[in-house]
Amino acid sequence: MRKPSSRIGTIYGIGLGPGSADLMSVRADKLIKSSSFIAFFRKAGRLGHARKIVSEILPKNVKEYAMEYPITTEISLSDPRYKKIMSSFYDECCQHLRSVINRGEDVCVLCEGDPFFYGSFMHIYERLRFEAPIEVVPAITGMSAAWTATGLPITWGDNILTILPGTLSKKELVDKISSTDAAVIMKVGQNLDKIREAIALTERKSDAFIVEFAAMSNQSVCKLVEYKKEVAPYFSIIILHGRAK
Amino acid sequence: MRKPSSRIGTIYGIGLGPGSADLMSVRADKLIKSSSFIAFFRKAGRLGHARKIVSEILPKNVKEYAMEYPITTEISLSDPRYKKIMSSFYDECCQHLRSVINRGEDVCVLCEGDPFFYGSFMHIYERLRFEAPIEVVPAITGMSAAWTATGLPITWGDNILTILPGTLSKKELVDKISSTDAAVIMKVGQNLDKIREAIALTERKSDAFIVEFAAMSNQSVCKLVEYKKEVAPYFSIIILHGRAK
Repeated sequence: MRKPSSRIGTIYGIGLGPGSADLMSVRADKLIKSSSFIAFFRKAGRLGHARKIVSEILPKNVKEYAMEYPITTEISLSDPRYKKIMSSFYDECCQHLRSVINRGEDVCVLCEGDPFFYGSFMHIYERLRFEAPIEVVPAITGMSAAWTATGLPITWGDNILTILPGTLSKKELVDKISSTDAAVIMKVGQNLDKIREAIALTERKSDAFIVEFAAMSNQSVCKLVEYKKEVAPYFSIIILHGRAK
Repeated sequence: MRKPSSRIGTIYGIGLGPGSADLMSVRADKLIKSSSFIAFFRKAGRLGHARKIVSEILPKNVKEYAMEYPITTEISLSDPRYKKIMSSFYDECCQHLRSVINRGEDVCVLCEGDPFFYGSFMHIYERLRFEAPIEVVPAITGMSAAWTATGLPITWGDNILTILPGTLSKKELVDKISSTDAAVIMKVGQNLDKIREAIALTERKSDAFIVEFAAMSNQSVCKLVEYKKEVAPYFSIIILHGRAK
């Protein structure tokens, strides 16, 4: 008989979906309900969004490892220090996860959205994938919840869909929006003004929707032209629907 | 007290996800397990893929309405008859669904993938959305399952992701692939050769993966350069991953 400590644990990268517990997959739900160790990213001082989604289904004695981002928006993404700080942070997280699986315990890493679609889990995955068993559970993306919230299909027939980070330059946004049928713009937050201007230049201004907190209890959907805020919550998503041709 | 027949039923457009029953959402799973009437599209003479996904969880006495496509590939998409035939078909489906909800019964329309991301449910939705209560349950897309199957993240940081139907012209495919970080090519099937040529022209040939039957028991993942078939199963998906910058 093998002692528990003689096997290496598995890391599960579990997509939690857009933020409503019942939009998790059945597989994710089962894995979390039977987990003994969970890990999740969060901003320091917060409970963490991923942690919140699963709060009702966590087993009683589950061990928790909160991986707290050392920086979020304090240093610009383009600052060379950003990459260095984040890289050491991910190294440190991996060191800790390694110690857990090396004692034979499985770890469920909770991931908002889909683990391989943007997101932080990929940095863990990239560092550990050749030395540890890792299973990734795909999930409903935030953008699926966002287009569902608008009550209109995102793509018809042979439509092209382009997913754009709001961090792109205005010119890039204009170019891409002009040459696609449907578009989803992620990472809106501080980039809202630039995105508004870009969409206006493509003459699709009146078609755009902005969705805050898709699939969550505080979800809000609004035509972009009627949205009065100057900065949107970071995870807001802008949707330009395709059309049946 | 209201008689059951005095209320109108609700139509649930339920995304089933990529094809594994446990990748359905908890919400979809619950709705299907408590359904009394389901409807689903299928090719005539087949059980139907959507129907197959839920076969283990359907209640015993559920009523079923199979909406059988009158044509699939017999008539070209560009033939004007195609649109007309499909349009009367959807009208007929809606007529039937209307009669069900008008007698006060709820209907679960089973949708492969995510209901608002390509797919046939949108034609029902478009026809009934102003006269019937409709709730749409988003789901994991086939493409999420496909990139998960490749074992590599699809998008990092500020990557742009473009979703392309394989029905586009070779020139359009080349243009789009050349100007994106990551790409997903859907509807591969008969378009495989053209897509292969297009990717070769962008010099990303050796990066591409093709995934057949993502998340299903017969899933297969292959580098496109090593894939020997001349026609791929219709729902195959080609993946070009983004890269960390």
